[in-house]
Amino acid sequence: MAILSDVATEVLIPLAAVVGIAFSIAQWVLVARVKLAPSPPGASRSKDGYGDSLIEEEEGLNDHNVVAKCAEIQNAITEGATSFLFTEYQYVGVFMSIFAVVIFLFLGSVEGFSTKSHPCTYSKDKECKPALFNALFSTVSFLLGAITSVVSGFLGMKIATYANARTTLEARKGVGKAFITAFRSGSVMGFLLASNGLLVLYIAINLFKMYYGDDWEGLFESITGYGLGGSSMALFGRVGGGIYTKAADVGADLVGKVERNIPEDDPRNPAVIADNVGDNVGDIAGMGSDLFGSYAESSCAALVVASISSFGVNHDLTGMLYPLLVSSMGIIVCLITTLFATDFFEIKAVKEIEPSLKKQLIISTALMTVGIALVSWLALPYKFTIFNFGEQKEVTNWGLFLCVSIGLWAGLIIGYVTEYYTSNAYSPVQDVADACRTGAATNVIFGLALGYKSVIIPIFAIALGIYVSFTIAAMYGIAVAALGMLSTIATGLSIDAYGPISDNAGGIAEMAGMSHRIRERTDALDAAGNTTAAIGKGFAIGSAALVSLALFGAFVSRAGVKVVDVLSPKVIIGLVVGAMLPYWFSAMTMKSVGSAALKMVEEVRRQFNTIPGLMEGTGKPDYANCVKISTDASIKQMIPPGALVMLTPLIVGTLFGVQTLSGVLAGALVSGVQVAISASNTGGAWDNAKKYIEAGASEHARSLGPKGSDCHKAAVIGDTIGDPLKDTSGPSLNILIKLMAVESLVFAPFFATHGGLLFKLF
Amino acid sequence: MAILSDVATEVLIPLAAVVGIAFSIAQWVLVARVKLAPSPPGASRSKDGYGDSLIEEEEGLNDHNVVAKCAEIQNAITEGATSFLFTEYQYVGVFMSIFAVVIFLFLGSVEGFSTKSHPCTYSKDKECKPALFNALFSTVSFLLGAITSVVSGFLGMKIATYANARTTLEARKGVGKAFITAFRSGSVMGFLLASNGLLVLYIAINLFKMYYGDDWEGLFESITGYGLGGSSMALFGRVGGGIYTKAADVGADLVGKVERNIPEDDPRNPAVIADNVGDNVGDIAGMGSDLFGSYAESSCAALVVASISSFGVNHDLTGMLYPLLVSSMGIIVCLITTLFATDFFEIKAVKEIEPSLKKQLIISTALMTVGIALVSWLALPYKFTIFNFGEQKEVTNWGLFLCVSIGLWAGLIIGYVTEYYTSNAYSPVQDVADACRTGAATNVIFGLALGYKSVIIPIFAIALGIYVSFTIAAMYGIAVAALGMLSTIATGLSIDAYGPISDNAGGIAEMAGMSHRIRERTDALDAAGNTTAAIGKGFAIGSAALVSLALFGAFVSRAGVKVVDVLSPKVIIGLVVGAMLPYWFSAMTMKSVGSAALKMVEEVRRQFNTIPGLMEGTGKPDYANCVKISTDASIKQMIPPGALVMLTPLIVGTLFGVQTLSGVLAGALVSGVQVAISASNTGGAWDNAKKYIEAGASEHARSLGPKGSDCHKAAVIGDTIGDPLKDTSGPSLNILIKLMAVESLVFAPFFATHGGLLFKLF
Repeated sequence: MAILSDVATEVLIPLAAVVGIAFSIAQWVLVARVKLAPSPPGASRSKDGYGDSLIEEEEGLNDHNVVAKCAEIQNAITEGATSFLFTEYQYVGVFMSIFAVVIFLFLGSVEGFSTKSHPCTYSKDKECKPALFNALFSTVSFLLGAITSVVSGFLGMKIATYANARTTLEARKGVGKAFITAFRSGSVMGFLLASNGLLVLYIAINLFKMYYGDDWEGLFESITGYGLGGSSMALFGRVGGGIYTKAADVGADLVGKVERNIPEDDPRNPAVIADNVGDNVGDIAGMGSDLFGSYAESSCAALVVASISSFGVNHDLTGMLYPLLVSSMGIIVCLITTLFATDFFEIKAVKEIEPSLKKQLIISTALMTVGIALVSWLALPYKFTIFNFGEQKEVTNWGLFLCVSIGLWAGLIIGYVTEYYTSNAYSPVQDVADACRTGAATNVIFGLALGYKSVIIPIFAIALGIYVSFTIAAMYGIAVAALGMLSTIATGLSIDAYGPISDNAGGIAEMAGMSHRIRERTDALDAAGNTTAAIGKGFAIGSAALVSLALFGAFVSRAGVKVVDVLSPKVIIGLVVGAMLPYWFSAMTMKSVGSAALKMVEEVRRQFNTIPGLMEGTGKPDYANCVKISTDASIKQMIPPGALVMLTPLIVGTLFGVQTLSGVLAGALVSGVQVAISASNTGGAWDNAKKYIEAGASEHARSLGPKGSDCHKAAVIGDTIGDPLKDTSGPSLNILIKLMAVESLVFAPFFATHGGLLFKLF
Repeated sequence: MAILSDVATEVLIPLAAVVGIAFSIAQWVLVARVKLAPSPPGASRSKDGYGDSLIEEEEGLNDHNVVAKCAEIQNAITEGATSFLFTEYQYVGVFMSIFAVVIFLFLGSVEGFSTKSHPCTYSKDKECKPALFNALFSTVSFLLGAITSVVSGFLGMKIATYANARTTLEARKGVGKAFITAFRSGSVMGFLLASNGLLVLYIAINLFKMYYGDDWEGLFESITGYGLGGSSMALFGRVGGGIYTKAADVGADLVGKVERNIPEDDPRNPAVIADNVGDNVGDIAGMGSDLFGSYAESSCAALVVASISSFGVNHDLTGMLYPLLVSSMGIIVCLITTLFATDFFEIKAVKEIEPSLKKQLIISTALMTVGIALVSWLALPYKFTIFNFGEQKEVTNWGLFLCVSIGLWAGLIIGYVTEYYTSNAYSPVQDVADACRTGAATNVIFGLALGYKSVIIPIFAIALGIYVSFTIAAMYGIAVAALGMLSTIATGLSIDAYGPISDNAGGIAEMAGMSHRIRERTDALDAAGNTTAAIGKGFAIGSAALVSLALFGAFVSRAGVKVVDVLSPKVIIGLVVGAMLPYWFSAMTMKSVGSAALKMVEEVRRQFNTIPGLMEGTGKPDYANCVKISTDASIKQMIPPGALVMLTPLIVGTLFGVQTLSGVLAGALVSGVQVAISASNTGGAWDNAKKYIEAGASEHARSLGPKGSDCHKAAVIGDTIGDPLKDTSGPSLNILIKLMAVESLVFAPFFATHGGLLFKLF
């Protein structure tokens, strides 16, 4: 038996979640101390560190109106983002309600809506709860997951929009102050999400246990609905937000930067508010939902596999909840890690920002390795049995420690490779920038090649992770490896959210007409954020691959499939078609962004042509119309790709059965990972190649610049092409592969009993 | 037993091949009647139809020097192409020799180089020839395949360069005459390749039989080396030729069209000869080798599977050679089909060209369906047994007819979908052209989305083909389905070769300074050729998918694998890594084209800047230097991607064993098909979107043009990006997936005995 008692487990998990929430509130309070109102005279001399001399004072233009203007812009952004999210949630809400009914009906029909108990699948001597109640509880946990996801995304957006103008104002005092404000705000989101996700899951398990009692199989099967709910919501959040943000961004850039030659975020550009709103609904709310989904799914996958292992059979609660204990440890480790950025060291110069962020990743990974060892030692018996497609497999606690660790470190490797291919400090991006010499075409060719190439090492890392963890502990090993990769999610999210906040802070500085030195500071924050955002995406994709494989394994176990043989026609056609789905999905999302951007371009052109004095800065653009275009386009266009992902498992499972569905899942997984990584990295590389030319930090970079040169124009074209790749298609593909897997898992009992209609008929 | 006697089979196959060769010689003679020398006065009035009034005469500028100039340019192109191919063959020759030794050593070592016979794998009561001799004969057939491939590619190039200036001269008499010349030349190549491939294979089988006698298992195992040889050569031909042609094309366009604003193929452009050479070594020689490889592989796959079926066991020669009989019938059917284009109807107007080419596809498919029915009825017993991974499967002759037909018709569907997505007569390409309104970025975004979308229907067609043929006749069904898709290869190749010939004809007209009306005619030929080339690529990819699946099946059978279970860690890591290979490969080839194009751009710029009077047409550019740059770049850069493909099966099989290798093959197949289709179609769509704007044939098209407008410039950027996608990466990926499969098949006995070293060690 494990060293940790069941009671201790029951206390420690919620405790860690509460500590995380408390920490995030504390960070919020610190951010809130930056006042968005002109400070009273004299207050700026106080000793609390928030009253250093401002850039305005140094430059002798202490215009306190600027603060009011920042507040005004922030309000406009918040309003736009809130209104978009509410519209989005309305549509998605309808969809979710329908889907909840589908879940209930499909799962309820497994035993013809009977209310009688039946013998359990894996412990034949026990009675398990009727399928009808599993259907009910699955539906409830589905809705719970969806709501938690909504809350996660929405709170993230609120915090980000609360923080961006504050970051701008702090930038007047120095880059270090601005960094801390942005980073603290990011960590509010990071910790809130991680803790909230853990807490809700923990509470749900305990509530469900009141009904299920001994039937852990049924309990954890129902809990998988939580992952499905979280991920479904994430899909619409990512796709809708992704289309919104990129339609606005591409539209604003095409007219503003390319045609009118005005700088990014110039207040004269009618799409500028929409662009900033987009960052908050796409990169913040969308990404928050996405990572929450990954987290929920990997936990659910691990739990459902554990429930049919010896933990479940022997009712070893601590062993059973090992995945949640790992996540709890993750929150504590990330908490300590955050202090390294905000309290233990102080950032004084621009060049310290990126190392400081990267240090976060290394510190959290190193500490977490110790943390995992501790949890594995305390929470796991020395030896236990895992169910492996009909066979039993002996696993030791240090074996499982290895599984979690390999996931964790594989994530770090993927992150670093991503950085190598997308940061302009290294030769790949510099080569892409150099290709701009001969125009946009070679820039694009080199960028695509870079994206393809960047797939190699991450895939080997993932393959190694899969092989080791699978060999040690079958699908449970993969599930905990995925969990390991996501165990430092709080830190990952903090860094991820930090990027768009800095980006917005720069936008606000530009729009409020503040000193260019402030824009330079926020640009430096943003550039560092860009690279780390790419790292974050690498993590997200890597973990998605592992999570979906774990879910796939859980699905296969639950559907009673023993072998998925590539040499059977049912599987091979599934494999081929599954590998096609990421392309279909990307075609939809790319085209959506393209069409929406075209509309945006027309609107922006129209405003420049018809509003008198707009270009001269005397006329006022109609921001609201651009916001409306983005909103309408993204709401309308998120439906088809969403439907594709949500309906495919249902249709394939029902018509073709579990074998073909297994093929589809495997095909979508192995093909989707490649498309996702290459799309994200290509886009990231183009973005940073452009920034490389703009910044002109080296002899080589200066020879390509300056802004407005032919090289720079070619780089801007690449950047624009990369926008939908890296912020719409690429990251949404993570969700595609995970979501189809978790949905198959939830519906597995239905497919196993009623699936394969077409083959049954013919 | 079959109706057709063994003797009849032994006669009919070579007869069909000889008829094909005779037909191709006859076509050559007809093409040769166009004289590349100024005709003596009076001869132009002869009644043979080759002396109509020329455009020059109509326009009153009957300059006979133009003929001499065309001949001169043609010589330059021929010389460049010949010299490149010889250089290429030297390098590849070294590689092939080494690889031949590897084959011999690896296969010989299976039984420790013993010269003793051993019991057969599938008919245990019989003695089979020793592995050492299988090694020897495999090596011989490998070399035979490679040489046949070289001859195919080389002859194709010779014919194409022989025909292009003749097409230009015929264009003076009218578009119909030019069409017939180009099409006849294409069919010389088409029939020569198909017949030659069949004949060599037939002779090899009969020669090998003298040694093997009763041991059909060993005989047809050795014959698979033929497919490997053909495909290895094709790989280098496609990659080397593809890099050559696109480096020259991109380089010429970037400086000529974009920077200097001079028309395509302008003789002032120093890269213009290299560009035209490229068409002949890439699109002609490379494609010829490629399709020959597909043809050889699908035949070998079908033969090796048949050898272990009841045909092989009962020594039913006619049934055994059914695949070759289908190909023989294909030659006859294509022969009749060709007459529809050249003799039964005459083309009088530009708008008749494309329908005429498309009719070729429909006629050949319809006739072939009848042909297959006939062959299946005559050559197959009513019922026979197929070996299906350890099980026996009963198949009827009409079942097999269905397998071949479904392959044939799936090919047509893929072809038509490809046309829909790449022809500017339909909305997808028009939408892409329309996206040029807002610049190159939206053009690229829409083009990428189009490519992704174009994958959907072909994949469903392939999946359906796989399912039906697999269900009917297991892997043998898939092999003959692939063969069905390739059975009309002679027509397909004729159409494919026709495109680059027309393209070159236009180039020669431009360079020789002929009337613009001639260029218009050749452009019309070329435009039709572009669409049909895309259809040809669709065929090539579709058949590659089926062929490689069939080879995969044969490999699995031969390696003694019964199940390839996605749920085993060895397979899943293979699947993930295999799915990555197309990206790795594309990264290499794209980057190669990019780098080579950069060098070409610098050279062209240098010449424009340093050669006095070049821009004014008084100075003479240094064509040879550009040819050299393309040659050097492609020779150097074809090695790494070639090595990747050739070494992967060897390394994976030796170190990780047949299970992981199976995963790699399946992964590469399902992912590679998608990348190949989307890359080819994206590139084709951009090309035609540009042509759509240039042609200005509709109100909408004119609103985007004319040449030189901002829209057109954006379209040119897209076209340039598409060049390496559609002519280098995309088509090479076919070979990647086929070649890895056929190589695994050849080395299967080695991997089965000595493979998986790494897992054995740990």
